[in-house]
Amino acid sequence: MTTDETRWLSDAERQAWAPFVGVLLKLPPALDSAMRQGTGLSHFEYVVLSAMSEAGDRTLPMSKLAAVTNASSSRLSHVVDKLEQRGWVRRSGHPTNGRVTHATLTDDGMVIVVETAPKHLEAVRALVIDALKPSQLGQLAAIANQILERVAPGDAVAIAAAMRDR
Amino acid sequence: MTTDETRWLSDAERQAWAPFVGVLLKLPPALDSAMRQGTGLSHFEYVVLSAMSEAGDRTLPMSKLAAVTNASSSRLSHVVDKLEQRGWVRRSGHPTNGRVTHATLTDDGMVIVVETAPKHLEAVRALVIDALKPSQLGQLAAIANQILERVAPGDAVAIAAAMRDR
Repeated sequence: MTTDETRWLSDAERQAWAPFVGVLLKLPPALDSAMRQGTGLSHFEYVVLSAMSEAGDRTLPMSKLAAVTNASSSRLSHVVDKLEQRGWVRRSGHPTNGRVTHATLTDDGMVIVVETAPKHLEAVRALVIDALKPSQLGQLAAIANQILERVAPGDAVAIAAAMRDR
Repeated sequence: MTTDETRWLSDAERQAWAPFVGVLLKLPPALDSAMRQGTGLSHFEYVVLSAMSEAGDRTLPMSKLAAVTNASSSRLSHVVDKLEQRGWVRRSGHPTNGRVTHATLTDDGMVIVVETAPKHLEAVRALVIDALKPSQLGQLAAIANQILERVAPGDAVAIAAAMRDR
């Protein structure tokens, strides 16, 4: 099943790609499952609430929230709907620009973030961070940023800027 | 938003985790989108067909197909249903063990794999492989295998064995 024109993967490329696809497919459901045990929040719902908790006035424009959480606007909107129904988030229009919607973490939402943060960290450490040697952290940062530049040019920069703002 | 008991992420850990979460969230839809343009197959559907194309008699037990493609059995079953409806896969019982179901790639399915393979490779190269330096391939392989050992112990070994069998 080969043709002459196609640059097939070398052994080294295949040995990187195969386990990496495994991580792409299996890590997100594993993170969700670890988070849901005892918290009732998915990993992504926590990421959204946590990003708001770290913003000034616990408020972010929906567009910036989408950028910081790496979500499409439709996915984010769907999740914020659910969080709003539970009373953890409140949406409001911008005072002078009707096209901008802000999302604010409520007091109840803040309680959830504080309660859930250690559980989130535990899952991230158990499944990813504590699996790596210190020297691999910098390697992973570089690899992930380079891939992100291909997948969503400009986002790697946006994430770095958002982290500096914290 | 900190407590004394929790081991919060260090700067180095956070600088690895933030872009890596971005990759987890954005790469799979980007791969799907790149694949669907012109093929009508999602990335995962291609992975399933491709795994069968490389097996003897183009046939694998569903359980082994799930292991090789990193899928849960329910997800795989759902996707194989769709591929069967399109005439690309055929399921059959094992001749002597009624509990084992095999999936076979049909001739039409093989045509689809051959037609789609270069498109898949193009997406994988554009979004991941060609973003990395040669030295980073080995780094990514080690990092991904170590994470996979945490997420699904034993799977990293299964993938390595499946690759050796090819």
